[in-house]
Amino acid sequence: MVDPALRLFFEPCCISVVGASRRVNSPGFVVFSNLLENSRRGLLGAKVYGINVKGGEVLGEKLYRSILEVPDDVDHAVIIVPAKYVPGVMDECGRKGVKVATILSAGFSEVGNVELENKVKEVADNYGIRIIGPNGLGIYDPYTGMDTLFIPKVKDVDGKKEINLARPGKGFIAFLTQSGALGGALLDYLTGEELGISRFVSWGNKIDVEESEMMEYLAEDPHTRVITIYVESLKENGRRIFEVGREVTKKKPVVVLKGGITEAGARATLSHTASLAGNIQIYYAAFRQMGAVIAEGILDMLDKAKALAFQPPSRGDRIGIVTNGGGPGILVADAAESKGLMVPELSDGSKVYLKKYVEEGVIPGIATFANPIDISGTATDEAYVAATEVMLNDKEIDIVVVLALHHPPTISMDMPQKILGLVRDYRKPVVVMDIGLMGISNIIRRFFDRHFIPSYTLPERTISGVCGLVEYGRILRRGGVLDEYLDSWEPPTKISDMS
Amino acid sequence: MVDPALRLFFEPCCISVVGASRRVNSPGFVVFSNLLENSRRGLLGAKVYGINVKGGEVLGEKLYRSILEVPDDVDHAVIIVPAKYVPGVMDECGRKGVKVATILSAGFSEVGNVELENKVKEVADNYGIRIIGPNGLGIYDPYTGMDTLFIPKVKDVDGKKEINLARPGKGFIAFLTQSGALGGALLDYLTGEELGISRFVSWGNKIDVEESEMMEYLAEDPHTRVITIYVESLKENGRRIFEVGREVTKKKPVVVLKGGITEAGARATLSHTASLAGNIQIYYAAFRQMGAVIAEGILDMLDKAKALAFQPPSRGDRIGIVTNGGGPGILVADAAESKGLMVPELSDGSKVYLKKYVEEGVIPGIATFANPIDISGTATDEAYVAATEVMLNDKEIDIVVVLALHHPPTISMDMPQKILGLVRDYRKPVVVMDIGLMGISNIIRRFFDRHFIPSYTLPERTISGVCGLVEYGRILRRGGVLDEYLDSWEPPTKISDMS
Repeated sequence: MVDPALRLFFEPCCISVVGASRRVNSPGFVVFSNLLENSRRGLLGAKVYGINVKGGEVLGEKLYRSILEVPDDVDHAVIIVPAKYVPGVMDECGRKGVKVATILSAGFSEVGNVELENKVKEVADNYGIRIIGPNGLGIYDPYTGMDTLFIPKVKDVDGKKEINLARPGKGFIAFLTQSGALGGALLDYLTGEELGISRFVSWGNKIDVEESEMMEYLAEDPHTRVITIYVESLKENGRRIFEVGREVTKKKPVVVLKGGITEAGARATLSHTASLAGNIQIYYAAFRQMGAVIAEGILDMLDKAKALAFQPPSRGDRIGIVTNGGGPGILVADAAESKGLMVPELSDGSKVYLKKYVEEGVIPGIATFANPIDISGTATDEAYVAATEVMLNDKEIDIVVVLALHHPPTISMDMPQKILGLVRDYRKPVVVMDIGLMGISNIIRRFFDRHFIPSYTLPERTISGVCGLVEYGRILRRGGVLDEYLDSWEPPTKISDMS
Repeated sequence: MVDPALRLFFEPCCISVVGASRRVNSPGFVVFSNLLENSRRGLLGAKVYGINVKGGEVLGEKLYRSILEVPDDVDHAVIIVPAKYVPGVMDECGRKGVKVATILSAGFSEVGNVELENKVKEVADNYGIRIIGPNGLGIYDPYTGMDTLFIPKVKDVDGKKEINLARPGKGFIAFLTQSGALGGALLDYLTGEELGISRFVSWGNKIDVEESEMMEYLAEDPHTRVITIYVESLKENGRRIFEVGREVTKKKPVVVLKGGITEAGARATLSHTASLAGNIQIYYAAFRQMGAVIAEGILDMLDKAKALAFQPPSRGDRIGIVTNGGGPGILVADAAESKGLMVPELSDGSKVYLKKYVEEGVIPGIATFANPIDISGTATDEAYVAATEVMLNDKEIDIVVVLALHHPPTISMDMPQKILGLVRDYRKPVVVMDIGLMGISNIIRRFFDRHFIPSYTLPERTISGVCGLVEYGRILRRGGVLDEYLDSWEPPTKISDMS
């Protein structure tokens, strides 16, 4: 049973920013002004009050000297005062009836102030206040307008305002991170990749709400289709997270990136969030046991999450590749087998169909029918559709990779639409690659992404996506729920329908 | 001794496009019109003549019925007629006194027409004509304006012309590729990454000029600082390429990406360029023996090439990391150790200096002095400079990675300039990372790149760059020439000075 208070972290009715400041670009100013702006623009359905012991006014809003003076019920306190004042502030929050607190302040156990941190937790427990933080960036939620990111949105560069910390739009991927710096960087990266986000939580020392509880919450969250987690250390009871995790991963994929997996990395975590990374093999064994998909790096995490957000898990590890370019097809096949996937030869049945298409002039005579099917650089849209259809129908292929290489003049801009029309009729996962970063390459990938066929720029990234779908399928099968999961799997609906 | 004719592939005086066509977007039209445009605009210092058996006119230029009719000496023939006509065309080229031919036509050994291919080679040998191709995209050279890429530059998308095949600008990286499709895709990718190119050669079946000879040529090429090669199979004498390679790699780094390293990949090469990929272990052993840096994928190849183009090779594998964000620092340390690099603890001397900086208020008191040095999110530009200086002076650190994470308001836009000013005084290689794809993240990375400090978006990519420098340093040491190489190493000069 998930604590219903968790909803208030993302959808509060009334927020107090304790430590709201007049000093432009200071954290207290940034958080207060962002929340206020979102509230005024109707993006955030909550009233926002600023608290500053000195009183005064910011952006036309009165600052209250204490949360106790706020003429309204407050359910969510965002706290950004120096660490030593936090216990006192928490006590006032308790007396005010605050339900949840996002503590952004740093200066607790990560710099040795364990006692102060324990004190904060103690006060919170007395009043039953739930905490995210301290020592994190807090929360960003594009669906509700909740935003405690205290880093300036823009900086002046030669008199022009340039994006300092970008906010991705609405999406399907939740991201929970122990590192605020990584969290901020990831938001910037996600925006550039045009991957949206559902809920973002940067919880630093995570002294209260942590992985198991948040995973349970997100398992029921309608906006979240994939949960991604950056973790340096687990603080909670090991058994609990793996028991909860096992249930959550039967409902939604969880992708975990572990920081501190080497000696140097582990040494660094010790000074970072006051946590020893622990024996990495034990961590990995445990993550695997709970049914998490393990990420090998940031890009691998994002590429897996994207595929898992858009496509159903794969029934097996046999991939079929369609290409009109030899080299790219070879590199995808290499990347696949290097990751332990199978790239089997085509079945005889498929070869018969392909030969028929050649006879009918749909597929060029110089095409080759190994796996990859290489329809050659002279192939048309129709050859793509025909070859992809054969792969989709081949019972010995579990997942299809279409290399939608757009360069040849024989490929029209309708090719993506035609492939999309075909793919819709099958429940077999499909992933697309078009190498390049310019013009039509971007247009083609964006089209596929917007129709929830995950597309990638490179063989290694494409295979990350494929591995995500294969690995999650394997996890569901091991849990005995793959068929059930696939029966009820639905593709995402357009973001605009969801918000 | 390199055949002096090779220069004519990139810098001809007079070109004939055999197979010039009036049909817009056909290969014969694209090549002829691009070369003509470059010549008319003064980018290409060569006359361009079109040859078409039917005669006629294109873009105001007369088409000659045979190369023999051209009223000028022709040194470079670009051939793009159906395969069966190529031997005849080559014979005419020989009679005309052509020195080099770029054969773009397909339909030779890659589709089983081995005899036809042999015939072409025989005619060429009779006349001493050197060949690049057939079955490739040929040549692209941003310094000389030579451009035989027969894929349309743009395509119409909803009435707007969008880039179909992008051309990167002038740079330091040469790329030789057996796959045309991969070559085209790479050009597009390089453009997006704002990485320039020096010489691009897509030679498909490479029946004449091949790796050893072109490497020798590029070793003396003033524009090329790094040679990158995509190879599915080597056709030439194994001993020769490794003897030549051993000499070339003492002068310039060579990065090799091998296609067909798995069973499925190798099967695909067989149908692709009519070449069996061969035993991959033998290939790798041979590449290592010749002193090539091995790439694990496209991105790894580009990231290594970028570092090698900008920075000196590393004397050893001990990396020092400076960061203001804990998580990103941990992930870089993890990526480094996972690749076999050392991330040693700091020397006592360095710790003394760092403590002094803390006492002086330059570095925040909460900074931690393991490796990574984490100067914390409250650090200023000066803290970055101080910590980086300590790493540069530490004799137990061979290569420095600066995580120039730009988010905190305490970091100014002058930080990159300040780090650059410092780094210039040392001969120790430096690599930079700033995660993100938006606004200031791009501005900061572009600044570093333009000043030849290679910058990356992600930990895994950063470590690819580092590995390139470490690996090449190791190769030079093994060859007994590291000191000599480093003594004469010069940073790149601005592209504008070179062209």
